[in-house]
Amino acid sequence: MSTAWTSRYALRLKGVKSSTIRELLKLTQRPEVISFAGGLPAPDVFPTQRFQEACRRVLEQSARTALQYGASEGYEPLREMIARHIARYGIRAHTENVLITSGSQQALDLIGKLLINGGDRILVEAPTYLGALQAFSVYGADYVSVPCDDDGLRTDLLDKPLRSGPKFMYILPNFQNPGGTTLSEKRRHELVLLADRYGIPIIEDDPYGQLRYEGEHIPPLVVIDRENLRRDNGYSIGNVIYLSTFSKTLAPGLRLGWIVAPPDVIARFVQLKQGADLHTSTFGQAVAYEVAKDGFLDQHVRLIRKVYGERRDVMLASLKEFFPGEVAWTHPRGGLFLWVTLPIGMDSTKLLETALKENVAFVPGDCFYPHSSPESSRHMRLNFSYGEPELIREGIRRLGIAVKHQMAELHAVHVG
Amino acid sequence: MSTAWTSRYALRLKGVKSSTIRELLKLTQRPEVISFAGGLPAPDVFPTQRFQEACRRVLEQSARTALQYGASEGYEPLREMIARHIARYGIRAHTENVLITSGSQQALDLIGKLLINGGDRILVEAPTYLGALQAFSVYGADYVSVPCDDDGLRTDLLDKPLRSGPKFMYILPNFQNPGGTTLSEKRRHELVLLADRYGIPIIEDDPYGQLRYEGEHIPPLVVIDRENLRRDNGYSIGNVIYLSTFSKTLAPGLRLGWIVAPPDVIARFVQLKQGADLHTSTFGQAVAYEVAKDGFLDQHVRLIRKVYGERRDVMLASLKEFFPGEVAWTHPRGGLFLWVTLPIGMDSTKLLETALKENVAFVPGDCFYPHSSPESSRHMRLNFSYGEPELIREGIRRLGIAVKHQMAELHAVHVG
Repeated sequence: MSTAWTSRYALRLKGVKSSTIRELLKLTQRPEVISFAGGLPAPDVFPTQRFQEACRRVLEQSARTALQYGASEGYEPLREMIARHIARYGIRAHTENVLITSGSQQALDLIGKLLINGGDRILVEAPTYLGALQAFSVYGADYVSVPCDDDGLRTDLLDKPLRSGPKFMYILPNFQNPGGTTLSEKRRHELVLLADRYGIPIIEDDPYGQLRYEGEHIPPLVVIDRENLRRDNGYSIGNVIYLSTFSKTLAPGLRLGWIVAPPDVIARFVQLKQGADLHTSTFGQAVAYEVAKDGFLDQHVRLIRKVYGERRDVMLASLKEFFPGEVAWTHPRGGLFLWVTLPIGMDSTKLLETALKENVAFVPGDCFYPHSSPESSRHMRLNFSYGEPELIREGIRRLGIAVKHQMAELHAVHVG
Repeated sequence: MSTAWTSRYALRLKGVKSSTIRELLKLTQRPEVISFAGGLPAPDVFPTQRFQEACRRVLEQSARTALQYGASEGYEPLREMIARHIARYGIRAHTENVLITSGSQQALDLIGKLLINGGDRILVEAPTYLGALQAFSVYGADYVSVPCDDDGLRTDLLDKPLRSGPKFMYILPNFQNPGGTTLSEKRRHELVLLADRYGIPIIEDDPYGQLRYEGEHIPPLVVIDRENLRRDNGYSIGNVIYLSTFSKTLAPGLRLGWIVAPPDVIARFVQLKQGADLHTSTFGQAVAYEVAKDGFLDQHVRLIRKVYGERRDVMLASLKEFFPGEVAWTHPRGGLFLWVTLPIGMDSTKLLETALKENVAFVPGDCFYPHSSPESSRHMRLNFSYGEPELIREGIRRLGIAVKHQMAELHAVHVG
């Protein structure tokens, strides 16, 4: 879209995905559509009553500070709580290591602002989180992407891309968005050592780490990195900046995420945060603190794990029931998404058009790659956290019909 | 500050003000200090009870949407309300013209992101809002500044700077921060015509427009611009993007501002907003809507005007009582700030050191200019909205002592 203003003032935007997909995704909002497209938490598990009490307490006890301007670093009790909270994963952080951001998305934007100059190359997983590509591309990022398999990023393929001098690596080790895969412990160690050897920092994005439905917790990259540093085996400094969020454990509508980094890096981010939005909503932070405190967050995460774990199982069972044998999908041990691979030659953007006629939707794979290709077009991302189990089953049934229909067409073309 | 991480990864920041002033401003937080440094609304007028009811209603009636991800454009009822609300100032806007931002500060950041390429020149008033300089400098802005007098920006001095081809003009027409001055109606017409003649857009920042304590309302630039466009007197398109906020009328802790622009420009901002923080807190927006609706905002603004108008009068009277005759200050007809001009040769950063010994603080003038100079160092910004009247009087008494002390020293140096 370019009209009077944008053409007079020559406004252009970098890094915006094809409008075809955006237009299709708008159709997923129709009420009759069962959408696996969003990355939405289930609203039926929002702790509404606890929010009621939290708002009442905040406004009774501290309205004068909660409604006022606050520190760019974030609300101190919340920063302290986060530092304590992540200690259970072995992340040693103090309040000064934590910056509150307006969702994890803002953390990605601040990272782009601080680290990326036009033309800088960023190493990403293929596929990777769409929002990170959006955030980084605005700053003129180029990308080098490294494929994933069931154990996450292929660390055996990292040497050459690292020698090309990327500015940083952007990695989602747990229940990756969109892949649903988890980086194995062995590869985490390899990745962290490579980061130090080549002097390339890692941005570790961990929005889903707490949402594990099976298997054992694996230490985050930032912990492995710090252990190496403590053992002083040729290590200079820690190389990992860690990001997480309350969007998947409390409520995304609050827009509350955080960055964990050395204090000198936090100081830089604070200055950028000032210019970006002064600070994140003081009221929202105070309410989140009141909701999460006294162990409520842990208790609530247990409920979410139970609900989402069941929905994942329903989706996996439905895929098996309704999808043809030529289609493959990942088996996520946590998180919100799974990743479907269609037979060679199929195009998931075309499939979305067919699927919308069946009133079911997903996000085509192309969205999750810096550059689309026949390979990237073979995939689709399915969300299993949002819908109730019977809707998931019905949606997968409809999607199965669309897939079979598309496969038959493809076959007809080949034969024809 | 540069330690291991920031030096290994060569992190630098552009456009960050001298750390001397930042360190001094930290001292203004001491409880014994009467601070005129902040730009803080008075917490005693926050409508806490109304917030209580609003939170309760939002969580009872729409928790599932208010705690969920929302549209990047903002919460639809709030956008509609803003479009209606600004109509009283003659601004004709529909919902599609309004984007909700995380405070006005984010609007400035998005403007920098969309419009500024490294080395672009931005035309600003001298002095101008510090936060705008912070937001724009990150994108590599250079500045051309045009002086103000009691009638605001000197439009008679604009031709030459406009011929130098600035990317846009950043203008605060009402009760300017920091100057406290208001752009006269005659100059508004001149400015808008010049913008169209040279094809240089105007960013009109209007956080204080509703807070007028004397005199008649003057039409915003965006209204004059649209009228010219309607009359079609050689005009191509409207050239003004308008910004405002709830920070000064409801509560800054919510971080809620907005951009009013043509739909094609809003569409660009929406894409950038997605990458920056996905959207502004849905919960905060829904609560603000519930607080503001049914005429409450207007009623509340009347209260604020009364309270702040009295505080302004107390500050003006105290300045007259306690400051030496060689010092001048502006007479703001609204807003939160006034601007003091010290005698030639005085330096307000040095004065701040003396003032802090007297337990009183302000922001030195240098902060509000892209480049500091002996002229910029002669000024200080005083906030009159935050403190209660007796504290304002006591603070100005202390500041008067510091000023006289500093003037005596300056005189001694000259004589010696």
